[in-house]
Amino acid sequence: MSQLIPLSPVPLYSQLKELLRSRILDGTYAPHSRMPSENELGQTYGVSRITVRQALGDLQKEGLIFKIHGKGTFVAKPKAFQNVSTLQGLGESMKQMGYEVLNKLRSLRHVPASALVAERLQVAEGSTVTEIRRVRLINREPISLEITWLPHAVGEKLEKADLVTRDIFLILENDCGIALGHADLAIDAVLADSDLTQALDVEEGSPIMRIERLTHTADGTPLDFEHLYYRGDAFQYRLRIDRQKGAQS
Amino acid sequence: MSQLIPLSPVPLYSQLKELLRSRILDGTYAPHSRMPSENELGQTYGVSRITVRQALGDLQKEGLIFKIHGKGTFVAKPKAFQNVSTLQGLGESMKQMGYEVLNKLRSLRHVPASALVAERLQVAEGSTVTEIRRVRLINREPISLEITWLPHAVGEKLEKADLVTRDIFLILENDCGIALGHADLAIDAVLADSDLTQALDVEEGSPIMRIERLTHTADGTPLDFEHLYYRGDAFQYRLRIDRQKGAQS
Repeated sequence: MSQLIPLSPVPLYSQLKELLRSRILDGTYAPHSRMPSENELGQTYGVSRITVRQALGDLQKEGLIFKIHGKGTFVAKPKAFQNVSTLQGLGESMKQMGYEVLNKLRSLRHVPASALVAERLQVAEGSTVTEIRRVRLINREPISLEITWLPHAVGEKLEKADLVTRDIFLILENDCGIALGHADLAIDAVLADSDLTQALDVEEGSPIMRIERLTHTADGTPLDFEHLYYRGDAFQYRLRIDRQKGAQS
Repeated sequence: MSQLIPLSPVPLYSQLKELLRSRILDGTYAPHSRMPSENELGQTYGVSRITVRQALGDLQKEGLIFKIHGKGTFVAKPKAFQNVSTLQGLGESMKQMGYEVLNKLRSLRHVPASALVAERLQVAEGSTVTEIRRVRLINREPISLEITWLPHAVGEKLEKADLVTRDIFLILENDCGIALGHADLAIDAVLADSDLTQALDVEEGSPIMRIERLTHTADGTPLDFEHLYYRGDAFQYRLRIDRQKGAQS
């Protein structure tokens, strides 16, 4: 589609959105470049400023463009993604693709287990667990807030570990000698609340991909319960799924 | 944690949020019931109304509660979830768990392939592809908007298919005799735009889990490209991942 079709059953703003999306994805409008103004786009494509504004508004909700007050509309960078077909920490996974991963340690505390954490880690509610809060940075940009709960006996071993440059998975395996098995994940979408606004430097109400992840040891004991909050505008999960269970692909 | 701790380094609103979340998840505050008022919660937990409001605001962003103007705050239903460890259509997957799945067919059209669709389906840009838009309902409630693109030769066979009660995957396999292989998925979070607001009966700016899915035939040819938009407040993906590729669990 390279032209808008005035009498199509597809509304003009929707056609314009598709067209602009294609031109952003194919690089005609390059990452970080300023988009033409609403007036310029209206003239180029022969549509009203209201139509342009609706198309741009939708592309912004999708995370393809962003506005800077008084400066105009800019093309967002392509999202970084992690392949989650196998269980890896963010550092392991992203470093293989040439990204730098660093962590800001916000807190490591020994706290009473909430009902949810207790149920997941199979410990008594109120018993002591270790809670670690980290902001994870990819190429120095905050990408996720991760809250990790571990049984206290394991957690206290992490007090002196290098949580700034290393993944918790690798510390558990290499320093603590614990073999990791499988993880159960639940993925959904929420809006950034005040904690996330501060941690990830996004506006309140921004889209967030949330993961609840329970990682087990190789013998199936729950070990590491996490809430991962990823910036929707900057990050994707990717995976491959087979139609037949156990198929080779 | 059953009491708030005034001198804790964790802010009171954050403690209250955790406590209320636990009580929603354990059923103390049951789905669809009205939450106590801000004043009542303030008195019960000995905190200010501002603290209560911040905790409730965060739980609303997380999708655990919702407000009805003039009526108060209510507990949301637990989210429905689909297990995506193997590739299944929504109908197949949810019916196994006792849900009813129906589809509202919004359009089936033969349209010129956009640059993105052409690249994914490996057809020429502008060549004809079939585009199907459906709203999927779980127990009569709109859960997702799904846009499917198929090569025209396949798509025209779907014109007379029962797209209201059947999954496209099963129509492709059983009616068209095409064996399905693997799918590549990208998952992220966006905000509801005007199309989604209308299709899913949610407010503009609501959280949406977005999936881009490219399903291949058993011999590896790209066949079915889709954009799936799930209501973040109502739906989750769940999956199990192994630490070792190919491990049995």
